[in-house]
Amino acid sequence: MPPAESGARPSTQQIEEGTAFAPAFDARGLVTAIATDAVTGEVLMVAHMNDEALRRTIETGEAHYYSRSRQKLWRKGESSGHVQRVVEMRVDCDQDCVWIRVEQVGLGACHTGRRSCFYRRVTRGADGVPALAFDGADKAFDPAAVYGGAGR
Amino acid sequence: MPPAESGARPSTQQIEEGTAFAPAFDARGLVTAIATDAVTGEVLMVAHMNDEALRRTIETGEAHYYSRSRQKLWRKGESSGHVQRVVEMRVDCDQDCVWIRVEQVGLGACHTGRRSCFYRRVTRGADGVPALAFDGADKAFDPAAVYGGAGR
Repeated sequence: MPPAESGARPSTQQIEEGTAFAPAFDARGLVTAIATDAVTGEVLMVAHMNDEALRRTIETGEAHYYSRSRQKLWRKGESSGHVQRVVEMRVDCDQDCVWIRVEQVGLGACHTGRRSCFYRRVTRGADGVPALAFDGADKAFDPAAVYGGAGR
Repeated sequence: MPPAESGARPSTQQIEEGTAFAPAFDARGLVTAIATDAVTGEVLMVAHMNDEALRRTIETGEAHYYSRSRQKLWRKGESSGHVQRVVEMRVDCDQDCVWIRVEQVGLGACHTGRRSCFYRRVTRGADGVPALAFDGADKAFDPAAVYGGAGR
């Protein structure tokens, strides 16, 4: 986000052990962003941020993402009102991923109407084949009523 | 992982509301994998899994990943002994991300020697420029002694 002053990418030592925030954007200009509930620790969603989404998240204290499907900046809750207030942002060792601990305003983070996107557990059936079990999957809101086909 | 029987990708409705595990691998054949501490909820690391890593994780109950840099399957802890026992695996709405809650065996998940890869908090300096603050960053082990340049 703040380009290295020399224009060169910092060394691995600087990236891992330094205090400069130097996000390692991928070829599409994105880092992975994980949002967890600041109180329960539950993983709410995983999305991506580009440089602008990162900057706006830091400046406003509300989560902004970059939608790969819609190819645009996306303020979480812009149409649903289900905004995410950032309690803390952390970055991982190689700086290609940020973790935000958020206060999830409103009923849920997932566009399907659930609180978390991770509403299914991976299980193994009697035949050994993995399958999914709904678990904590009650819908907190009606996505059609909240989104009406618009952004998340 | 289990290919759709028709060979066709399931519908959005099936992916989001169904019980078939149908990982949405990206162009590189990978899904994102998040590992959190099953007890504390802390995010330990973020990595990737290919089809084989997913299958082995499910079959063995120990986390396997795919190393993009080394282009090979990687059993977490194979050289350090710091394996991850999977307590639960969940998948998100569009099935391009799995979340595993793990029991982290040994001292840490991060190759830098820390328990978690997220040992730095993103802060804003007096000038408004984001910077990093070390926080919970004490090294739990000496990576040089544990890895000796080998896998993680």
